Amino acid sequence: MTQPRIRKTVENWISAIRPVGGPPKAPESLGVRINAHWDRLTKPKGSLGRLESLAVWYGQVHGKERLPDPRSCVCVFAADHGVAESGVSAYPSAVTREMVRNFTSGGAAINVLTRHHGIRLEVVDVGVNGDLAGWAGVTHRKVAMGTRNFLEEPAMLPETGLKAMEAGRDIAHSLIGQGIALLIPGEMGIGNTTSSSALASALLHMPPEEVTGRGTGLNDEMFRHKVRVIEDSVRKYAPVMATPLDWLWAVGGLEIAAIAGFIIGAAEKRTPVILDGLITAAGALVVHKIFPPISEYLLAGHAGQEPGHRKILESMALDPLLKLDLRLGEGTGGTLAATLVRSSVFLYNEMATFESAQVSGPH
Amino acid sequence: MTQPRIRKTVENWISAIRPVGGPPKAPESLGVRINAHWDRLTKPKGSLGRLESLAVWYGQVHGKERLPDPRSCVCVFAADHGVAESGVSAYPSAVTREMVRNFTSGGAAINVLTRHHGIRLEVVDVGVNGDLAGWAGVTHRKVAMGTRNFLEEPAMLPETGLKAMEAGRDIAHSLIGQGIALLIPGEMGIGNTTSSSALASALLHMPPEEVTGRGTGLNDEMFRHKVRVIEDSVRKYAPVMATPLDWLWAVGGLEIAAIAGFIIGAAEKRTPVILDGLITAAGALVVHKIFPPISEYLLAGHAGQEPGHRKILESMALDPLLKLDLRLGEGTGGTLAATLVRSSVFLYNEMATFESAQVSGPH
Repeated sequence: MTQPRIRKTVENWISAIRPVGGPPKAPESLGVRINAHWDRLTKPKGSLGRLESLAVWYGQVHGKERLPDPRSCVCVFAADHGVAESGVSAYPSAVTREMVRNFTSGGAAINVLTRHHGIRLEVVDVGVNGDLAGWAGVTHRKVAMGTRNFLEEPAMLPETGLKAMEAGRDIAHSLIGQGIALLIPGEMGIGNTTSSSALASALLHMPPEEVTGRGTGLNDEMFRHKVRVIEDSVRKYAPVMATPLDWLWAVGGLEIAAIAGFIIGAAEKRTPVILDGLITAAGALVVHKIFPPISEYLLAGHAGQEPGHRKILESMALDPLLKLDLRLGEGTGGTLAATLVRSSVFLYNEMATFESAQVSGPH
Repeated sequence: MTQPRIRKTVENWISAIRPVGGPPKAPESLGVRINAHWDRLTKPKGSLGRLESLAVWYGQVHGKERLPDPRSCVCVFAADHGVAESGVSAYPSAVTREMVRNFTSGGAAINVLTRHHGIRLEVVDVGVNGDLAGWAGVTHRKVAMGTRNFLEEPAMLPETGLKAMEAGRDIAHSLIGQGIALLIPGEMGIGNTTSSSALASALLHMPPEEVTGRGTGLNDEMFRHKVRVIEDSVRKYAPVMATPLDWLWAVGGLEIAAIAGFIIGAAEKRTPVILDGLITAAGALVVHKIFPPISEYLLAGHAGQEPGHRKILESMALDPLLKLDLRLGEGTGGTLAATLVRSSVFLYNEMATFESAQVSGPH
């Protein structure tokens, strides 16, 4: 059970978050003014479709009609999962550390995408099981050597989880202080689809088989085992769980806690967040269950292959931008979606108006 | 009726086009080898979903396992339409010329997108009604001052249409000669959704109301008028039409002919093409009706708002990559799709392998 001091800390953070703008259609609302600017640009009204609504969202979150330069950053939070011992992943836990090394060498998918799309990349160790202290290119915020196996005991102590949330929140604040205007959480952690599906099952009150997928590639037998691990764990903790934070400590992950803190930190500073896959959605879900208006700060970057991902997005009424059947994580889907959001902001800021370009309007 | 000499010229071009690769699943086929490389990269197998298949398509069209640098170019073909006199567009014809000016000043949507995504932009006058001879930043391939009103007489002479096709084909060849490896046709021409919907109705044998939309923004009455114009025209020409080219000359546009030639020119040189909206799809449809395997060279960039667009893509069995409800044209949707194709090629070419990055494989 979450101690009152810890719950208070999180509630204090959240109390600084204001709901995004008024109803978009209200006269003189920010949304109306942003749409009016779209209509002055040299294109038929509404012809950029959903791209136009992305700029409206971006401006409303920032609370600005003149849209800030969409400087963007992906933060990959990495951590290990004790539950990976229980045979729920196709890959060994060592891959978490090995992939962090790959991130620092520039060889992972998220490196390639951020490099080509002019997006900054930060890699954060919040809980990798290994000593990365000397590693360059990593932000060191390790709070533990991974979680414990939640099939046997709660994944983390509330104090440890809070520290991971603080790490995520601090990093969001720091990046925003450096002029970043669009944040994309990513993650790396062998076992973290199990943790995320357990959170989805618990917080959405859905049977594990409806929110569990094959992660990095399980066969039928391993998949059934994964569902059973989630089912047994959720059943075991349910009687003593009182709040969404309790569930986060019980079956969550350190990177998921960091992502929850990262989202809170972004929203405190009115900065939009693009979600990636199941794991970032699980981090958002924990915040959403405490403070539902958080969803106004979020864009669902894509609809991935994991069933839990789609269920979580539906529960937050988020409509995914891309449908590419991704299931990689790292922030890859969020980054691709960010290129569309950035495109939308560039169009809004840089297109000529009918007046400035001396283009005739409709008859 | 198309003269035999003209038909022969187009058939000669098309005879140089080879079907793309063998069946993708055949052992040792290029597709199998490209997929095998994907599986060596540091990500779970298949986890990049549709992004992986984009690189397979790109490599198969090029006929290469090592994917060429995806240097990309959007070509906006501009031309006027006599049928615009008949009240089928919300905007006056002068907008075609005014928008070409806007393209040269960098203020249109396609300028903003290509600028930010590192994609080259060419603007081609194939039939704008006005003297653009002195305009810098325009490729001058004008073959006529627009089409005639096809409600009254055929839109163009076959000789004129062939010249427009030649312009498109020449430009594709020239760009490919300069190292461009991915081509995106775009267009500008007030009245061209009417022309494209007429082509769709005629070539797909569908009633005009199923393939006609509101273009740049018609009200109900103007929309009914547009449908009637298409219906009357298609009915009038049908008795004397023998080939898809006949229809192109009768109800098509000079930019649509240029796009058809551009696609043929790309395919002759094994270069992939990303389609944008209804008008580029109509250009592709004319080629497809002559040579169905052309669709292997094409990616549908997006599903737009125009019903004819979706019908044409379905008839060519193309599955649109993005769904953003765009209806702008200019190549905007094709450009956004190109950022995904380029991302896919960059990932394929630059990601580390499990071996090179010393990352462990599955258990």
